[in-house]
Amino acid sequence: MQIEKPYLMFIGDVADQLAAKTAAGIVDWRRDWCVGQLRLPGCKADLGLEDIDIAEGKRRGARTMVVGVVNAGGVLPEHWIRSIVEALDAGLDIASGLHKRLEDVPEIAAAAERNGRTLHNVRLPSQTFATGQGTKRTGLRLLTVGTDCSVGKKYTALALEKEMRAQGLDADFQATGQTGIFISGRGVAVDAVVADFISGAAEWLSPDADPQHWDVIEGQGSLFHPSFAGVTLGLLHGAQPDAFVVCHEPTRTTMRGVPARLPTIRQVIDATVACGRLTNPRIQCVGIAVNTQALDEAAARACLAEIAETEGLPTTDPVRFGVAEIVKHVKVLYE
Amino acid sequence: MQIEKPYLMFIGDVADQLAAKTAAGIVDWRRDWCVGQLRLPGCKADLGLEDIDIAEGKRRGARTMVVGVVNAGGVLPEHWIRSIVEALDAGLDIASGLHKRLEDVPEIAAAAERNGRTLHNVRLPSQTFATGQGTKRTGLRLLTVGTDCSVGKKYTALALEKEMRAQGLDADFQATGQTGIFISGRGVAVDAVVADFISGAAEWLSPDADPQHWDVIEGQGSLFHPSFAGVTLGLLHGAQPDAFVVCHEPTRTTMRGVPARLPTIRQVIDATVACGRLTNPRIQCVGIAVNTQALDEAAARACLAEIAETEGLPTTDPVRFGVAEIVKHVKVLYE
Repeated sequence: MQIEKPYLMFIGDVADQLAAKTAAGIVDWRRDWCVGQLRLPGCKADLGLEDIDIAEGKRRGARTMVVGVVNAGGVLPEHWIRSIVEALDAGLDIASGLHKRLEDVPEIAAAAERNGRTLHNVRLPSQTFATGQGTKRTGLRLLTVGTDCSVGKKYTALALEKEMRAQGLDADFQATGQTGIFISGRGVAVDAVVADFISGAAEWLSPDADPQHWDVIEGQGSLFHPSFAGVTLGLLHGAQPDAFVVCHEPTRTTMRGVPARLPTIRQVIDATVACGRLTNPRIQCVGIAVNTQALDEAAARACLAEIAETEGLPTTDPVRFGVAEIVKHVKVLYE
Repeated sequence: MQIEKPYLMFIGDVADQLAAKTAAGIVDWRRDWCVGQLRLPGCKADLGLEDIDIAEGKRRGARTMVVGVVNAGGVLPEHWIRSIVEALDAGLDIASGLHKRLEDVPEIAAAAERNGRTLHNVRLPSQTFATGQGTKRTGLRLLTVGTDCSVGKKYTALALEKEMRAQGLDADFQATGQTGIFISGRGVAVDAVVADFISGAAEWLSPDADPQHWDVIEGQGSLFHPSFAGVTLGLLHGAQPDAFVVCHEPTRTTMRGVPARLPTIRQVIDATVACGRLTNPRIQCVGIAVNTQALDEAAARACLAEIAETEGLPTTDPVRFGVAEIVKHVKVLYE
């Protein structure tokens, strides 16, 4: 899956900003790729882009219209279909983060067909993968892992890609979830892959590369999350990371969505090394990324200092303080 | 998925006995459910059942025709379609272990429709599952785990169900792969579930039950297999076993299909306890099942004695020596 850039951002008439979270993430990280936003009357979200129509999007060079929104009930409203068909008729591809497959809507399938356009359903992998082999590949890999779901694994990986490039490393973010796929233009939603092929999909995602090239792979779930640990382990085995960064949210008391206790950072490091060794014996933790959004700055600094002291690793909040220290540490270890 | 019994066993005109492996497994464990076999001219496999036609199968009470075979290339030959349509017209359901979905063949879909019959694709879960919750359920659960794939996890689970019942326990085999599903008439092929729902599917498979009821759950893969460990972990978390039995093949030197070293039995016990604790803190190993097929009887006895001594657990070859010792140990621990 390779989504053609730049993007016209379609957010329909969603009821609030949260429904446009995916689109907002794309704009945060790839504003240059976004030629404008297309909103329908009544839309309550705003991406901070200029409001334009499809014709203007086309004039500005857009090649894909991104439907980066969720609608209540997961249905695709009739007036969104009209906009999607219009975009296809204007010669744009469509990339959707909706649960519903675009080609299952007859008008959309017909419009794509008559215009020779591509429909991307980023939540729903269309390709088939081989099963994982576990064989060591060339190049370097960094995976973000978490004490829980939704603790900043995607954000941390993107921040690491940016900072590694700034510090002169050859690094590419590799997406494993829908927002990440829009941001990088390619990737695979590993949680939607058939179970037997999780590690195979992760292997496909980061193939053999130059010895000093870094794939910075977006992690999913947590080895300690009872709903998703299988996905996390398959991704870990397929990614075969040399290095990993643990992502953590210090104020959470139970795992997201389930009544299970949060593991400690140390437990996550130990389990990741124990499991990851199967496909890369040299796996090691290179830093800790803490989401301190819920703390004031003094409390955040104290929290980071305490974790850094306990674990003996560079510890930062990527949003507040960046990830320069982690990348410096990586350069010392691998150059 | 609940497959109606008894079965008429269809094995078409497969080229050898191996292609009828699934059907042979069903006959091994559930001969009483099989009213006869339907073979086409040139068939090179034999299930040891009486050769009958569809009309005779129907007279003997068959409710489902089982297509428990694989055909070269995975295609469904035209003359098999004819037999399947004939069975549907005779009022039988069809249960298939083929990779191809039965309803994707228009003649089969039409015949099922006009006769109001059910088509089961046991490799392809048709239902949707919730994500796993990790909450403790009532009743007791035993999971078979392995040092590798294809080391006898299904056979061991079925042998345990049979022996537990013989020793007066209330036990039900729960299938997680296609042959097991045919044998139990229900279950879910967990390796074909979308990755996010592996543990949820395992939770669905063994719901709340009587406090002394045992679900004996068929394991899949191995925590140490780089292709499939994600499935294994999701199944372990969802199954939340109280007890597990490690299955092992002592003459294997590398993991099935990949150039990875085999773990030791001790490594598998330790990893299973470490990971399984997340959803059941009382998880423990209750025995070891060794597939000694490649050894003569003296070597087999020596191998079992050595493992039993090292691990301090009942150790047996279920095929050669049965699983009575393991079940006695379970009764001591849980009664």
